[in-house]
Amino acid sequence: MNILVTGASGFVGRALIARLRSSQCPPPLAGAVLTLFDVNAPDAAVSAMPGCRIVVGSLDDAAAVQAAFAEPPDVIMHLASVPGGMAEQHPELGRAANIGGTLLLLEAAQATAKRPRFVFASSIAALGGPLDAPVDDDTSLRPQMSYGAHKQIGEILVRDFSRRQWIDGISLRLPGIVARPRVNTGQLSAFMSDVMHAMAAHEPYTCPVSSGATMWLMSTACTVDNLLHAATLTLAAQDSGLALTLPALRLSMEQLVAATAAEYGADTALVRYVPDPRLEAAFGGYPALRTAAGDRLGFAHDGDARRLVLQALNKTL
Amino acid sequence: MNILVTGASGFVGRALIARLRSSQCPPPLAGAVLTLFDVNAPDAAVSAMPGCRIVVGSLDDAAAVQAAFAEPPDVIMHLASVPGGMAEQHPELGRAANIGGTLLLLEAAQATAKRPRFVFASSIAALGGPLDAPVDDDTSLRPQMSYGAHKQIGEILVRDFSRRQWIDGISLRLPGIVARPRVNTGQLSAFMSDVMHAMAAHEPYTCPVSSGATMWLMSTACTVDNLLHAATLTLAAQDSGLALTLPALRLSMEQLVAATAAEYGADTALVRYVPDPRLEAAFGGYPALRTAAGDRLGFAHDGDARRLVLQALNKTL
Repeated sequence: MNILVTGASGFVGRALIARLRSSQCPPPLAGAVLTLFDVNAPDAAVSAMPGCRIVVGSLDDAAAVQAAFAEPPDVIMHLASVPGGMAEQHPELGRAANIGGTLLLLEAAQATAKRPRFVFASSIAALGGPLDAPVDDDTSLRPQMSYGAHKQIGEILVRDFSRRQWIDGISLRLPGIVARPRVNTGQLSAFMSDVMHAMAAHEPYTCPVSSGATMWLMSTACTVDNLLHAATLTLAAQDSGLALTLPALRLSMEQLVAATAAEYGADTALVRYVPDPRLEAAFGGYPALRTAAGDRLGFAHDGDARRLVLQALNKTL
Repeated sequence: MNILVTGASGFVGRALIARLRSSQCPPPLAGAVLTLFDVNAPDAAVSAMPGCRIVVGSLDDAAAVQAAFAEPPDVIMHLASVPGGMAEQHPELGRAANIGGTLLLLEAAQATAKRPRFVFASSIAALGGPLDAPVDDDTSLRPQMSYGAHKQIGEILVRDFSRRQWIDGISLRLPGIVARPRVNTGQLSAFMSDVMHAMAAHEPYTCPVSSGATMWLMSTACTVDNLLHAATLTLAAQDSGLALTLPALRLSMEQLVAATAAEYGADTALVRYVPDPRLEAAFGGYPALRTAAGDRLGFAHDGDARRLVLQALNKTL
């Protein structure tokens, strides 16, 4: 069994790889040879893992993609992207990686003639907005950032390549994933994680959305659960190529702050709310979410706010 | 005023150019310098027209696109594509032209820094199906052919480039356009035109869909009307980048045959119906169509079946 992970050096990629190499790895994937593809070289610890092939290169570099497919993968976990803020600032970079790179990967997957499982990490940014009514599987996509448009395009390609039976694909629209490490990698939504780190460390934090801002959230550990479920579940013919919004916990910023503060004995008054209208509009108005397709296929969110906080910050339950 | 037309040697492109050079040309576009871009060289008659620049090249050839933008256009009419049947048979060709080529054009339009009007000829193939209920502006797109997926991707790009104010774009989902010339250029829907030519010539015709098959149709002349309207109308900020399904006449094959036969004194018994399940599924089940956005912006269909036939076959009304 060969598994290719793009974006392997990102924070979700690293968590995914750690799980694939742990005793909690789902049986069909245990012992797989991993190809780790990223524009950044992995940590020394990852490089030293047995059964890992490392390919350092850009998603839109055909030779690098070719190298990543030297062992034709049975499963492709496509996590890599140029994220929201960076794609707005450097549109050519975003287009090249997010559209061109995804196409190169899909074409390489097609060329394996193995009909590999292709798990595409899409994003709720593909939904765009304004989202003024409850969101369900029929909600029209109206991306408000190039990043979201690129994710929508990726979903269409995954669907079309699956229809042709070149891949057996599924696109998961990931919600806000917490907690990212406290390093800036261009995600405009990083504040959702930063506020949690600040509470855990009893530090003051200036929050760029209002206390009443509502977000869809998922812990990194729960995200890995869902990615591995997507890698292993059997897709009926009519579901191959499906794009679905993952179940997510809907919390207000106030609820997230309270749940994190409670777990760490922190004072919620450490958070000062200074909403940035652009961030509030893009990330602070998520309505009720219904995920019939995701529920039916066995995807799940963290369960409740406390569990989200514990899983997000790697605290023992 | 500079106008760039891609797909200029195609049958819609030729009709568009003829209109732009006629006395029926809308005033703002009259006398414009035309850049005619196509992979096929234009007819001698077109090449000899004054004020026409000819660029022969492929849509996915960056140097050719560069040459097409040597006179930065105020209006871009993007008609070129690798059509349905050909894109299914030669997927790489389809992707390169329909996605890569459209991206090259959009990037070149962005580089003009003129925010040009960009009219994208999308297709009802982007709607896909099955279309089991009346279609309106909220109908989800579920393309069933790569061509339709590529058109949907083009719409998303036009929308995103318009949101960034790099272009002032609009995407028109064109219905079945009649009557194409009787040459095979890879359109699976060519039978809609072929049956009309056969009736006009009093020839027998084996129709690959049933008599009850329902289609959305528009004459070439009416298509040109709508394209020119799209090139000249003022788009409100919230409409810039819009993708809309054009109003179209919904006719059964039997109605189309009867209307054409009536105009030419032909015997409808010349048509024998031998439905091909694939064509019937793809082109023969179009339901009622509501086009609120298109109506609001002043787009229109031929009016009735007789007028469609007359305009489609260039008969004097």
